[in-house]
Amino acid sequence: MSSSSASHVSSEKQTQQVERILDARNDDHGGVMVEMTDESMDAGLFASLLRASLSQWRQQGKKGVWIKMPIELVNLVEPAVKEGFYYHHAEAKYIMLVHWLPSIANTLPASASHRVGIGAFVVNEKNEVLVVQEKSGTFGGTGVWKFPTGVVDEGEDICDAAVREVKEETGIDSKFVEILAFRQSHKSFFDKSDLFFVCMMQPLSFDIKPQEAEIEAAQWMPYEEYATQPFVQKHELLRYIADVCRTKKDGGYSGFSAVPTVTSFSKKKSFLYVNRQDVDS
Amino acid sequence: MSSSSASHVSSEKQTQQVERILDARNDDHGGVMVEMTDESMDAGLFASLLRASLSQWRQQGKKGVWIKMPIELVNLVEPAVKEGFYYHHAEAKYIMLVHWLPSIANTLPASASHRVGIGAFVVNEKNEVLVVQEKSGTFGGTGVWKFPTGVVDEGEDICDAAVREVKEETGIDSKFVEILAFRQSHKSFFDKSDLFFVCMMQPLSFDIKPQEAEIEAAQWMPYEEYATQPFVQKHELLRYIADVCRTKKDGGYSGFSAVPTVTSFSKKKSFLYVNRQDVDS
Repeated sequence: MSSSSASHVSSEKQTQQVERILDARNDDHGGVMVEMTDESMDAGLFASLLRASLSQWRQQGKKGVWIKMPIELVNLVEPAVKEGFYYHHAEAKYIMLVHWLPSIANTLPASASHRVGIGAFVVNEKNEVLVVQEKSGTFGGTGVWKFPTGVVDEGEDICDAAVREVKEETGIDSKFVEILAFRQSHKSFFDKSDLFFVCMMQPLSFDIKPQEAEIEAAQWMPYEEYATQPFVQKHELLRYIADVCRTKKDGGYSGFSAVPTVTSFSKKKSFLYVNRQDVDS
Repeated sequence: MSSSSASHVSSEKQTQQVERILDARNDDHGGVMVEMTDESMDAGLFASLLRASLSQWRQQGKKGVWIKMPIELVNLVEPAVKEGFYYHHAEAKYIMLVHWLPSIANTLPASASHRVGIGAFVVNEKNEVLVVQEKSGTFGGTGVWKFPTGVVDEGEDICDAAVREVKEETGIDSKFVEILAFRQSHKSFFDKSDLFFVCMMQPLSFDIKPQEAEIEAAQWMPYEEYATQPFVQKHELLRYIADVCRTKKDGGYSGFSAVPTVTSFSKKKSFLYVNRQDVDS
């Protein structure tokens, strides 16, 4: 009797275990997404829940399984990897783990591949360009005068990033005019690529206040003095960009304007950058 | 005697432990980079090595400490987080952990923020545009004829990605002409942003062979038949892009050409995208 009763309980327990799986929602591509809360969980319990969940998702023909794991649950990363998950991407506060279940080829999307930066060509009516000397980095201590530059923040529009960086580095208010050119480079930062946009800006104020932390000096400099610096002339890329800026300054160049549009499907607002002068004419 | 001897050994052991630290190389920003090999290591040993290393790096005034940890060493992620590390980014095979040691504000660079995609406007001499119907995704089963599109691979140039995607989806060989426009959108994929480049391509072959896995159908379609599809007309963004393409097709539009340049500092070749027609004239 006691043996039979024990077996009954155990069978009940098993049933409960099999039925209890991780909370997941379906995604749009035949897979499921698990978003773990930051409530602590024992690694052994997680491993058994995960195994039961995977078994059920396999039966249901699910494809990609995503687990968004907050850094507080770092103890659960190892059990997930032991069940076949690998890293997709990570941010400071979480890691995204993924597992492709079917035997057909993996069609999971790649993670972000590019950093985006801007350089700001701010020219005033006296034909002077706004330039800075940096305290550190590649240009620190070189005496080179360069355009204000910076990295586009997460979720920030390129045209807004240029306004922000000019303000931060020099105290100058400015208005975005056009993207004059951009460069794509690879392996610029770990294995990631880089897109660098040269933005023409119209200054809206004139008194410079250099940023203390990063900027050694800032000034309005006659354009030709900037462009004829040996450093600019020596580097093909900088020389080419200086030619583009001169052509623009003299009125003979059309870059890409920022046209606000509503993204078709998501209904979100976004900017289309386009040679508006040519489309409108 | 035995007590004194034991204490001697223990002191020796302590010295050895304190002196043994993780292999690290200096980076260009006052920090250090640890690249773990995939040789297995006990989590307890790693934790003690890491503590000794951090103590030494702090004394040396190091700023950012990076640990590139292969997925084989997933057991060492938790001890690193317990010592104050957090996630910077991750790829399938490794996670990059980082720890900012000084008390001044963290100036560590952000990780990649954007995915990059292309849409290919391939137009032939009969004023026909190359269009496809997709099997799945947003457009699957909608009957919408659209440009071939795709994601730029890691380390791939935008102009090459457009050639590759046209070939993969339709079998057509083509040559990159210009970038006509691009759109930046946010939160398009997890929390990441998206840059989508519309590329004009010149076809070099004409017999279409649709990709089986992703493409339902492909054809050369009279341009106005493409542009007047209700789906294109209904969406401001697609309508605007169709206008740009028409203007280009009719010879009245300058986009950005790909100019090969050598990146100034790294000596690497990269493309500058620029309105060459205006610079050259």
